[in-house]
Amino acid sequence: MKGYFITIEGPDGAGKTTQLKMLRDYLLGKGYEVILTREPGGTPLAEKIRNLLLDPASGEICPVAEALLYAASRAQHVAEVILPSLQQGKIVLCDRFVDSSIVYQGLGRGIEPQAIIDINHFATQGITPDLTILLDLTPEQGMARLAKRNKEKSQELDRLEQESLEFYHKVRQGYLDLAKTSPERYKVIEADDSIENIQQRIVALIDKYFTI
Amino acid sequence: MKGYFITIEGPDGAGKTTQLKMLRDYLLGKGYEVILTREPGGTPLAEKIRNLLLDPASGEICPVAEALLYAASRAQHVAEVILPSLQQGKIVLCDRFVDSSIVYQGLGRGIEPQAIIDINHFATQGITPDLTILLDLTPEQGMARLAKRNKEKSQELDRLEQESLEFYHKVRQGYLDLAKTSPERYKVIEADDSIENIQQRIVALIDKYFTI
Repeated sequence: MKGYFITIEGPDGAGKTTQLKMLRDYLLGKGYEVILTREPGGTPLAEKIRNLLLDPASGEICPVAEALLYAASRAQHVAEVILPSLQQGKIVLCDRFVDSSIVYQGLGRGIEPQAIIDINHFATQGITPDLTILLDLTPEQGMARLAKRNKEKSQELDRLEQESLEFYHKVRQGYLDLAKTSPERYKVIEADDSIENIQQRIVALIDKYFTI
Repeated sequence: MKGYFITIEGPDGAGKTTQLKMLRDYLLGKGYEVILTREPGGTPLAEKIRNLLLDPASGEICPVAEALLYAASRAQHVAEVILPSLQQGKIVLCDRFVDSSIVYQGLGRGIEPQAIIDINHFATQGITPDLTILLDLTPEQGMARLAKRNKEKSQELDRLEQESLEFYHKVRQGYLDLAKTSPERYKVIEADDSIENIQQRIVALIDKYFTI
């Protein structure tokens, strides 16, 4: 594989999307070919699956079926977007990937994390990121940011955002545990700071880590 | 689990649907509570997934995503129909189940059978049929039957039916291999005979095997 696969993880409100767009521009400026994509999404099938998950006519969807639908969407995303881009030598930046399923569906829906890992190993044809940036926030910081963002947009908190502080603690611990088991791949960046300072930390990391 | 889970397998044209309906009536006549269901299907989600697989707007769906979508449909079918019926002590008759995925998606799409087994183990929460009836036909017999049925209905052969004789040989061998590895569960019935004679063989098997 000639390309380079970077994912970004962390709770909603940590600034993943903003940071990834800035990182894309930085890498483009250095002359790399860069693809920025996100999960769940990235292909027409993913849109269809998302509609299916939201459509009341689907009936109540059990957690196991839901996990398999997300994995199907990811399989198509890998086959159609991520793998071909890596084979063409591009840098692929992906907003959330398998780790989000492990942390959210595992903890959120009570599915055994190893089962999520196994179906996603099948879905991704075994590809793993070369580098994962975890934007780490305490749950209190994350909630405060979400509340601020929603106030600015005059939006209500969505379902996941309404989860309790206890759930956010579990999600954070889940991410930190993943980071601990894959220290080579995972870099934890403290995200309770300005957009510019966080980006500086990411760029410093990339410059050091990423010597293609 | 108080109920009893019977599946029927075999190539198209073997008479699975007809035989299962007759078996349902036979068991109802003996006073059992019976549910007759089929794959892929059995729930609103399954209908949605089937539409998604057929809709050109989904784009080209890769074999891995397709296998995961079928598994998602099965997961919902198990959680919503099969498991609750078995827990209520009913006899569940199901037209095709995991073995169809192993034989058709494994051989047809070139996916490693063990991968199909693993994702379906997750999808089915580990439940396996108590009894599987394999209606065995030689590929030549199967093709002849399909051709006759389609002529009667003035239908064209569908995509799977148009597969080569070689493919049908592989499917038959796939089923016979499964039967060999699970001789307690699998009963092979030669299906090149009249509807009545085949049903007689099935009923003899059920009466002997099935002593609730």
